[in-house]
Amino acid sequence: MTNIILCGGSGTRLWPISRTLMPKQFVKFFSDRSLFQLTVERNNSLCSNQFIVSNTEQYFLALDQLSELHQTAQKYLLEPMGRNTAPAIALACMELSPEEIVLITPSDHLIKNQSAYNKAVARAKELAEQGYLVTFGITPSFAETGFGYIEADGEEVLNFKEKPDLQTAEEYIKAGNYYWNSGMFCFRAGAFLDELQKYSPKVYEASKAAYENASKDSMIRIKHENMLSIPEDSIDYAVMEKSDKVKVIPSDIGWSDVGSFDALYDELPKDEDGNTQNPHHIAIDSKNNLVYGNEKKIATVDIDDCIIVDTGDALLISKKGSSQKVKKVVEKLKEQNSELHNIHLTGHRPWGTYTVLEDSIGYKIKRIEVKPNKRLSLQKHLHRNEHWIVVSGTATVTVGEKNFTVSPNESTYIKAGELHRLANDGKIPLIIIEAQVGEYTGEDDIIRIEDDFKRD
Amino acid sequence: MTNIILCGGSGTRLWPISRTLMPKQFVKFFSDRSLFQLTVERNNSLCSNQFIVSNTEQYFLALDQLSELHQTAQKYLLEPMGRNTAPAIALACMELSPEEIVLITPSDHLIKNQSAYNKAVARAKELAEQGYLVTFGITPSFAETGFGYIEADGEEVLNFKEKPDLQTAEEYIKAGNYYWNSGMFCFRAGAFLDELQKYSPKVYEASKAAYENASKDSMIRIKHENMLSIPEDSIDYAVMEKSDKVKVIPSDIGWSDVGSFDALYDELPKDEDGNTQNPHHIAIDSKNNLVYGNEKKIATVDIDDCIIVDTGDALLISKKGSSQKVKKVVEKLKEQNSELHNIHLTGHRPWGTYTVLEDSIGYKIKRIEVKPNKRLSLQKHLHRNEHWIVVSGTATVTVGEKNFTVSPNESTYIKAGELHRLANDGKIPLIIIEAQVGEYTGEDDIIRIEDDFKRD
Repeated sequence: MTNIILCGGSGTRLWPISRTLMPKQFVKFFSDRSLFQLTVERNNSLCSNQFIVSNTEQYFLALDQLSELHQTAQKYLLEPMGRNTAPAIALACMELSPEEIVLITPSDHLIKNQSAYNKAVARAKELAEQGYLVTFGITPSFAETGFGYIEADGEEVLNFKEKPDLQTAEEYIKAGNYYWNSGMFCFRAGAFLDELQKYSPKVYEASKAAYENASKDSMIRIKHENMLSIPEDSIDYAVMEKSDKVKVIPSDIGWSDVGSFDALYDELPKDEDGNTQNPHHIAIDSKNNLVYGNEKKIATVDIDDCIIVDTGDALLISKKGSSQKVKKVVEKLKEQNSELHNIHLTGHRPWGTYTVLEDSIGYKIKRIEVKPNKRLSLQKHLHRNEHWIVVSGTATVTVGEKNFTVSPNESTYIKAGELHRLANDGKIPLIIIEAQVGEYTGEDDIIRIEDDFKRD
Repeated sequence: MTNIILCGGSGTRLWPISRTLMPKQFVKFFSDRSLFQLTVERNNSLCSNQFIVSNTEQYFLALDQLSELHQTAQKYLLEPMGRNTAPAIALACMELSPEEIVLITPSDHLIKNQSAYNKAVARAKELAEQGYLVTFGITPSFAETGFGYIEADGEEVLNFKEKPDLQTAEEYIKAGNYYWNSGMFCFRAGAFLDELQKYSPKVYEASKAAYENASKDSMIRIKHENMLSIPEDSIDYAVMEKSDKVKVIPSDIGWSDVGSFDALYDELPKDEDGNTQNPHHIAIDSKNNLVYGNEKKIATVDIDDCIIVDTGDALLISKKGSSQKVKKVVEKLKEQNSELHNIHLTGHRPWGTYTVLEDSIGYKIKRIEVKPNKRLSLQKHLHRNEHWIVVSGTATVTVGEKNFTVSPNESTYIKAGELHRLANDGKIPLIIIEAQVGEYTGEDDIIRIEDDFKRD
């Protein structure tokens, strides 16, 4: 069985932690594992292959986090933009044998009861082998109005229900045969594609054209114009709500979508006062708070039932129960033309990370960490000079025609306009402090001549 | 008349803004003026001379802030440690002619009604000229339990009262002839010293010995062992509560001691939702909050009546009305052996400022700003190498026997053990980025050979 892991999401409901370029599935909320990593580990014993479906900005986050688990995936498919789940799953299925059983999982959910999950997947696989398209229905723990529901009779699907109002949701809970639509599926790749062709032929045909025209070297890269021509559609609308081959597995598996800070608070370990455990927190008469932040001391005085989330460049304070309104904050940020919902001070790159320490008029200071055996692109800047000071590891530097190494406590200098490259040929991470000096120090002042990661 | 400005306090009730090395009187809460600067400006038209009484760590903050007002003070007296107000005022009075009228003012209070203040001071001066020791009694605006009270009959003092309980405070307000003890005084220098000698001879004698043994070059510096031998005492206990030459000026002058964040909230301008004005604040359904912080975006969701104070290394969130409990946070910090109640990421030095941008194992990054015509001490470090990159201004650098200048976008390097000095001989501020690399980068790894500011 192949585990198709969908990890292209860009959730901002957990802003300021989750942002477009570091979405919630890659954030390490729980014991040093991201939701993506927990997803991979959860399915390791169930599936022999992993197939990562991602986008061009995030696939190297998936690569990095797999390598932390000492794993790689068998296949990668990169979408230049998201077109919802039906195209993403179709494109992945086209790469596989029609007979292959696939387990489709989002990468941003938490499942706490592994043995119940294993049983549910085993039953789903049996049904998939019989040709069914299987969805997983989560036993609801409360009258959630933010999810769609599946009305079922045993494993038979009676109806897919849109997000209900509170009264309807309460009736669903009372009735006992309504389940949360979890976004997990299991079927033969070919069975799904057949049903997609039958019920949503436009999605099928456009996906097929896009798949056939994709570049397929180490990973499958869908071309921009092909992706654009695929109609946006969810697998539920495109197939599951129409096909007569659908089954549902009622699943009581300790599932959470960690879709808000309130949901996150429920899942995090807490101290005797109900505050999430945080060594930086000084609580004076304060109870039942989510306190997230590891950069500074956070003192609360007579504060109860709040969400406090501190990051390097943004702070959120919300009353508990109101954390769905975080999306209003993100709307405001967009109005203000801020980039705070997209990027963090620390940016992840295929070669490592950079962190902006200071961004001021005329200069910008960064800490740059390059992973062993990685190098940045061969590049030049028109408006800035760069001073590099090595503080750990050894840098291999190319400037113009020259090649040399720079050791800890040594420095070098790159004049504006000079072609240069920074590489780590060593065995330990290379850490340098970069001081950019110039009239303009924006990230877009970069001309890439050659790049290991095929970026523009 | 001479204005003796007491500015040695180290209040931490406004932590994390106010800390030992940047106490509240020097913080610019109001329209780019500190409480100290407002004090100086308030008395400029009333007094022909300023006399600053401070301590060795803070006097250059006073110097800096006076120079921002294009002023200097006529006299400075530096105490190596605080011994409360009686010795501080006595030492200053000993430097003046006995006939000189002095107006003693703390530097950490706000007075909003200048014309009422002017009248009160004018009347105090008349009484001082007649030989009285005058104190200012503030018309109370509510039943504050945190201040001492003065019971008066017109300008006659009937009694000094300790901090009352709430019921007693309410009775005082009802009675109408009780005033807050403001810590402001007016008298002839000699009249005060005579009364001090009469009622607190030990304080007087020890202060006299300390004054006579002080070094008196550009400023009066009391010696450590002399200061230590002066009994700690307040002017109220030592003189005012005992002398029969005391008068009080009932003063309705818009006074606030800005002694807590609740008091600060009352004084700051607010928007239509009752939130203090802050361009970094995104308020979603949030009202009546103090939001202080200028380094990052601060979003609040369904948060009312809170104090939110964000600084580079510490965040405080308190319910309004509870801000007196901030002292409990500071107690916790002391228990944790933290330095967060003493220092900020930005440290003020006689030559300028430094800001820690990153402090990590093996290296530390600082931005250093040197004022024109100032220089750091001639110094060396045993454990760290320093890389300096000039981003603005021109550095004059001494390394060993060599002297050279470093221009913007140039850098230089100081090896551990090398004697060096950084100076700004130019007309504009010098800004450098310093990357310290070494096994130990603590501030105390410094050997000063020569210092313009006579530091150890």
